Amino acid sequence: MITTSEALFSCPVPIDERSTVTLAHGGGGTLMHGLIEKVFLAALRNPALEQRHDAAMVDVGGVKLAFTTDSYVVSPLFFPGGDIGSLAVHGTVNDLAMAGARPLYLSAGFVLEEGLPMDTLRRVVASMAAAARAAGVTVVTGDTKVVDRGKGDGLYVNTSGIGLIEHGRAIAPALVRPGDVVLVSGDVGRHGIAVMVEREGLQFESAIESDSAPVADVVAALLDAGIEVHCLRDLTRGGLASALNEIAEAAGVGIRIEERAIPVRADVRGVCELLGFDPLYVACEGRFAAFVAPADAERALGILRGDPRCPAAAIIGEVIASEPLVMMTTQIGAGRMVDMLSGEQLPRIC
Amino acid sequence: MITTSEALFSCPVPIDERSTVTLAHGGGGTLMHGLIEKVFLAALRNPALEQRHDAAMVDVGGVKLAFTTDSYVVSPLFFPGGDIGSLAVHGTVNDLAMAGARPLYLSAGFVLEEGLPMDTLRRVVASMAAAARAAGVTVVTGDTKVVDRGKGDGLYVNTSGIGLIEHGRAIAPALVRPGDVVLVSGDVGRHGIAVMVEREGLQFESAIESDSAPVADVVAALLDAGIEVHCLRDLTRGGLASALNEIAEAAGVGIRIEERAIPVRADVRGVCELLGFDPLYVACEGRFAAFVAPADAERALGILRGDPRCPAAAIIGEVIASEPLVMMTTQIGAGRMVDMLSGEQLPRIC
Repeated sequence: MITTSEALFSCPVPIDERSTVTLAHGGGGTLMHGLIEKVFLAALRNPALEQRHDAAMVDVGGVKLAFTTDSYVVSPLFFPGGDIGSLAVHGTVNDLAMAGARPLYLSAGFVLEEGLPMDTLRRVVASMAAAARAAGVTVVTGDTKVVDRGKGDGLYVNTSGIGLIEHGRAIAPALVRPGDVVLVSGDVGRHGIAVMVEREGLQFESAIESDSAPVADVVAALLDAGIEVHCLRDLTRGGLASALNEIAEAAGVGIRIEERAIPVRADVRGVCELLGFDPLYVACEGRFAAFVAPADAERALGILRGDPRCPAAAIIGEVIASEPLVMMTTQIGAGRMVDMLSGEQLPRIC
Repeated sequence: MITTSEALFSCPVPIDERSTVTLAHGGGGTLMHGLIEKVFLAALRNPALEQRHDAAMVDVGGVKLAFTTDSYVVSPLFFPGGDIGSLAVHGTVNDLAMAGARPLYLSAGFVLEEGLPMDTLRRVVASMAAAARAAGVTVVTGDTKVVDRGKGDGLYVNTSGIGLIEHGRAIAPALVRPGDVVLVSGDVGRHGIAVMVEREGLQFESAIESDSAPVADVVAALLDAGIEVHCLRDLTRGGLASALNEIAEAAGVGIRIEERAIPVRADVRGVCELLGFDPLYVACEGRFAAFVAPADAERALGILRGDPRCPAAAIIGEVIASEPLVMMTTQIGAGRMVDMLSGEQLPRIC
């Protein structure tokens, strides 16, 4: 006879083996980082993965490449300012740009749900093609799978990308150091709010359009001007707050930011206040943070603001020698710790 | 007032704009090829895509690379001889090998369904890691998205891959020419039958295990031996029949094969007969066809058979100057046209 306690001991299952995947595991916050650490890195650990960069930097035949992948499951498929097709180009091109690479080639892997209108697919692919042309990349390889009705959600698409790293500069989270100045390339939070407003069918005076856009040209302008860039990070899932926390942790530094310096559009701030969101945690798809040497900060700001896509670029803070955390001086002058996103604010925005 | 006919004329929708995606659009046959041609190539056309190769061959900084992508939606996730994790490594590594490339780096993009047991994910990732080690590739970049319960099917995964093309030889569908000898690297149809038997819960005397395996080493052995290989094609969705039809069309040649020369295991043939499948249309995930110059055919066969994974390799036919079609001499000596798969035989086997 096997007693209950014997059965328990003969089949030891650690608590977390009984857990299941939640939406928050895809949210860009603490749960996702735990999943990456305990499941993916635990099994697949290697130096490239451990860079924890937006794109892996690898050597192929003596050439330095950036390689990255992202799956897109945004719901709805179309939203003000973009759709899953253009988003899938911008997101992957931007991940390559964050490694300082010139984006060259994309792959596109579609998972289609049986019953998807062919016209929807055509519109998504046409948008992807237009976005690729605009970003100067070519979709060179693809794949299509179809899953049974009810086992998908219209369509998901994965884009992976290859970029060429032509400069000799190292750009990586671990290279951020005290004194570095933190810039953002534009107003934050617009993409997440645009998708959420569309999904929930909310009506406001004017549509808030996603900021989804390619940023590789802007990054190239910084590098070509010889700006001493230590790290770049796009502000996607988990928003500015999570991106800064990731960098602080990877570099073992503190980051101090000024709330009033962070550009947030009035309409985005309004929707956030109405619905209880914090814009610091809302995803962008065409914005990045740059960590640059202090002597180059003003010049970097000038280059960003000189680009027609980045008029709201701003210096928002600096890197300090401290525990790895993000401190913010609020509008009223108080100090506030800005944590990484925990839980899930806005699921399926990319 | 708008009458019905006015409404119809004011909103002209061509018939095929009203169509929807079906499971057969993912089956590797004529519908999938139509979808690729009319939707994907129509919007994204470029020389690399038009190679219609398993992997795109691109130049990056003076180095010749192969780049490929595949999404995996196999159901069930675990089957005799493999699972979605190992399959996602083998499938993508093999696509690189089909371009004559040495597989180097993989990406992994997961779409997880809310509620997926964490232990299932761990098992899949562990299997992926083991398969990558065995195939000599590194997973260097990844992504995780989570979709709402009921909007996925456990998990889907996309792997994209980069390989290095080190030889100067051109290997492509368009290079196949009359006189070329057609070899297959082993028995066909085992993967599709293994998945189907598992999915349907069928019971047979002994389990049929998937042929899922990496083939890059075997391909490298052919190339290192100086075999004049004109084209390689792995026998995945749509099986041997569809692969041969794709090559015939791309090269503008005919292909003549001998049914009795095609290796099919007795147990696979038995299940096929019982259930009404034609093994020529059933997917493999560790088998390929090689088109080689006639003078090298016997030597190529010797190299394949000398590999412990390819004891059943065989010469199955030859390329002829004719309309692009595939003709088979059957067991009883009659002639039969072997078309590309139309419709869908076995959905979601990869």
